Amino acid sequence: MASVRIREAKEGDCGDILRLIRELAEYEKLSDQVKISEEALRADGFGENPLYHCLVAEILPGPGELQEPCVVGYGLYYFIYSTWKGRSIYLEDIYVMPEYRGQGIGSKIIKTVAKVALDQGCSQFRLAVLDWNKTAMDLYKALGAQDLTEAEGWHSFCFKGEAMRELAGR
Amino acid sequence: MASVRIREAKEGDCGDILRLIRELAEYEKLSDQVKISEEALRADGFGENPLYHCLVAEILPGPGELQEPCVVGYGLYYFIYSTWKGRSIYLEDIYVMPEYRGQGIGSKIIKTVAKVALDQGCSQFRLAVLDWNKTAMDLYKALGAQDLTEAEGWHSFCFKGEAMRELAGR
Repeated sequence: MASVRIREAKEGDCGDILRLIRELAEYEKLSDQVKISEEALRADGFGENPLYHCLVAEILPGPGELQEPCVVGYGLYYFIYSTWKGRSIYLEDIYVMPEYRGQGIGSKIIKTVAKVALDQGCSQFRLAVLDWNKTAMDLYKALGAQDLTEAEGWHSFCFKGEAMRELAGR
Repeated sequence: MASVRIREAKEGDCGDILRLIRELAEYEKLSDQVKISEEALRADGFGENPLYHCLVAEILPGPGELQEPCVVGYGLYYFIYSTWKGRSIYLEDIYVMPEYRGQGIGSKIIKTVAKVALDQGCSQFRLAVLDWNKTAMDLYKALGAQDLTEAEGWHSFCFKGEAMRELAGR
């Protein structure tokens, strides 16, 4: 029987990661916002000072099965800094392909992020989720996360390209 | 007359920055959550691979005035990675002491962050604000920010220490 392995992404995974980034954005109904390319993902994540780190979930074929391992999910994170708690992790994306859900792959990715965070001296990790994505919200809560928007009232704001250029007077 | 200068923080500003971090957390009614020390701020922001960057706003004495420049606000940020837009900035904290508000110091800090972001090839910068802090929300919106929690439904989640250790099985 096939089994699941969570491992660190390699540069050669960037094609799969981009495919899953696009699937996730489609699922979030925000796919028009994806501007990243495979080349940028390679350069940004696998150079000397990587801007992000990534875990991939892959299905390993069982003994005697001929297919290649297949990447079916990912968790992309980076280090941030809390002025309350110091070094922390932000899990920017977490995604499992619909046909592989319900097998605990998302939980495995989250548990691996928790291990990385502890190994790196972080005392928390944050992530964001859309309010209509009840399945994800329920999973994160069941795993012990706190909804800070609900509990404390935090709203995410963003200054995008045009607003930023205007602010900078350019 | 005194004037305001926005400049990059130096290691010697960490005492002032910590004072303002505590004031901000008090203003946010979340001051029990501040665990950071001045030593940690020095080590984390001013070593070889700084985990954060910081701008300070200082009041410069007018000609003939004897007092020292005085730090009355700060903006603390770091680089993050959007899988849609690439390298971005996150403005973790922005704060101006109450007695110095209404002079445009907050806007000056935000404009400086926008300049840094553009100079560093970022196409956006994000920040978070508490829903009852209408003054701040109105300012950010007036400056062109979008409230992504309102517009798209994003909620911030956090796995804190105990939850994280449990997830990691430690």
